Parts: sequence; structure tokens; C-alpha cells
Amino acid sequence: MTSVYGFSPSGNCHKVRLLLAQLRREYRWVETDSSIGATRTPEYLAKNPNGKVPMLELDDGRVLVESNAILCWLADATPYLPADAWQRAQALSWMFFEQYSHEPYVAVARFICGWTPADSPRRDDLPRLRERSHDALRVMERHLAAHPWFTGGQYGVADVALFAYTHVAPHGGVSLDPYPHIRDWITRVQATPGFVPMPAPDAAAQGRIDASA
Amino acid sequence: MTSVYGFSPSGNCHKVRLLLAQLRREYRWVETDSSIGATRTPEYLAKNPNGKVPMLELDDGRVLVESNAILCWLADATPYLPADAWQRAQALSWMFFEQYSHEPYVAVARFICGWTPADSPRRDDLPRLRERSHDALRVMERHLAAHPWFTGGQYGVADVALFAYTHVAPHGGVSLDPYPHIRDWITRVQATPGFVPMPAPDAAAQGRIDASA
Repeated sequence: MTSVYGFSPSGNCHKVRLLLAQLRREYRWVETDSSIGATRTPEYLAKNPNGKVPMLELDDGRVLVESNAILCWLADATPYLPADAWQRAQALSWMFFEQYSHEPYVAVARFICGWTPADSPRRDDLPRLRERSHDALRVMERHLAAHPWFTGGQYGVADVALFAYTHVAPHGGVSLDPYPHIRDWITRVQATPGFVPMPAPDAAAQGRIDASA
Repeated sequence: MTSVYGFSPSGNCHKVRLLLAQLRREYRWVETDSSIGATRTPEYLAKNPNGKVPMLELDDGRVLVESNAILCWLADATPYLPADAWQRAQALSWMFFEQYSHEPYVAVARFICGWTPADSPRRDDLPRLRERSHDALRVMERHLAAHPWFTGGQYGVADVALFAYTHVAPHGGVSLDPYPHIRDWITRVQATPGFVPMPAPDAAAQGRIDASA
């Protein structure tokens, strides 16, 4: 059975969980807490030298890393990846946007608020991260003013990728109030068949998030 | 004719130029100097709200952004993109690695050295950027110890993506001396059919690069 190595509160990992659920695929989840070094052990680094989650492992031991590449592999030849080459390229474009212009700000602001100590020097970065987060959200809002989804004509991989950290942006002090189209899109994603919610942060993380507000 | 909006010294833009040359495709290059705001004009932002180069524009006005998505679109149904789904996923994985774990360090160190003033406060980031650059290069070196290419069994999109900034890493003060497999791979890439070199930095940028060494 396919194994997914993932850290449950991670949006990058939730992407894989969500799409596997929607594809009704059986898999084994191997909880791998990157916040306490579980991706830096010799055993893990032997499988993924870049030391990150999520990681997909097939029965025969072959490994695939990078959340958005995993989504494309899982969605290949399903309605979650457009069959049309131009629409597939547009979906990929949004997935690269997610990893370059969105996740390094929206996800990192959330991580700092929820998973670093209240006196972490990384908190000095929050104003800049939040400003860049809003830059990314404005680009998304503008797209959604004219299109219902990010994956061509219907819900798919790019929506899964962008949903992960967008819907929990407020954990990092990034309000979604200015973005009515994003809020409507989040509601549409949550109503897709087989949708599973992202696990809530544990009590300690939620306490830090509340204290960062 | 397809238009490519690009800034010539940019590795992300060179990716598109290189693959188009290797595909023997005609195109129009529209020089767009992002270092002096040419991607922030109202006209440009109307086409690409994220305000970045490269951007591909088709005859009918349709636009595609994100360098690695452009590569996948151009390479679709050619030998530069693997036909096998698993190998295609691995190539995508390396392309996401490039944008998340490589470009933000290797390319940014180079940009700071060559395209910011000698007294830029951004230069304080260089030690951290160089350390992370070496992390990425070590992951590449390890792969190349066992495989000739990053795009499955032959040269293709992931090699184009990773070549762009890797071969000019020394511009950012990131030496390739510790990486013999990377240096051999660079030589192999430069020997592929239709290869075109990346334009050299102009004299002012080269002067700043030399002064940063």
C-alpha cells in the first residue's frame, strides 16, 4: 500500500491527504513531525535527501517528494488534472505560484505564530511576511473575480494546492476579510465530493496562534 | 508569433530561451527589465498581476506565466518532457525543488551581488543565502552521483530549470568546486543539441559581481 510520510498540521502534507481522500485511494499515513527533527534522521534523509515532508513511498520502495509533484502524479488521468495541455499548464503555473509567491509567506507566517516560541527572533519577520501574503492573496482574488477555480474549468490539483495554506492564513495573522472571492472559493472547495478538513492545530499551537493575534 | 517577455540576465527567463532554441521554435523576445520596474507598469500587470518575468504570450493574447510551467507547456509531447507518468512526476519534483529550495537562495545571492548597490542592506543576507545554496547543491550532487540527468533517463525540462541558476552560482559567491558531479552535468548540458548560452551580465553587473567575490 502507498505510504505518505507527513506532519498533520502541515498544509503541504494536507494537500496529499485531501486529494487521496477525494480519489478514494487507500494509503498508510506515517506521522513525521518535522518540527522536532523527524525529517532529519539518517533513515529519513536516505529516502529524501532534502529532508522535507510530504513524501510518497510506493510498495516497491520508489519515492516521490514535493507536495505539488505528488498531486500531479496522483491526479494523472483523473478529472483533477486537466487533459487539455494549455489548462494543465495553467494549473501548473498556479502551483508554482503557490510554492514561490504564496507558501513562503502565508505558510511561514502561520508556522512562526503557531510553532515557534513567543520570544522567537523569527517573529520580527512577521510584518514583511504578512505584507507579501497579502500580495499573493490579491493575485488570487483577482483571478477568482473572473474564474471559479484555479485548475481550468473545474476543481483540481491547483485548487488543492492553494487551498491548503490559504484557508488557514488567519493563523498567521493574515486576515481573509478583504477577499470575498477567496472566501467564496474556500466554501466551494469545502463542498467538493470527498472533502476532508485539515486537522486543527494542537492545544499548544492554538494557544500560541491566539496569543499572536 | 509567440512572444516571450523576459529580462536577459535572469536565469528564469533564460530557461525559456534555451528550451525554445532547442525546440527550434520561432519566437519574439520582448526585453523587460524587472530590475528597473518594467514588470510593474499598469500594462504589464494587466497581463501578469504577479508582476514577474518570464511571461509567454500567444498570438491570440493568451498568457502563461511561471518559468517552469512555461517549460512544461513548451515541452509537452516532445522528448524534453517524459512520456512516462512516474518520470514526469520526478521531473516536476525537481522543478518544484528548484523553485522552493534552490532559486530563492542561489538566484537571490547572485542578484544581490550583481544587481544591488555595494551598500545594499540586502547584502547582510548573503551568508545565510550561500549556506542554503550549498544545501541545495548537495542534494543535486547526491542525485547526480547516481543519475546523469534530472529529467528521467534523458536531458529535459528539469535539467533546463536547474541549469539556469546552478551554472552561474559563482556570481553569488557560491563556489561549485565541491561538486564534481554538478560540474560534469553542466558540461553535458552545454553539449546538448541546440544549446545557447545565457547572456553574460553587463559590465556594471559584472563589476559588482567581481567586487563581491
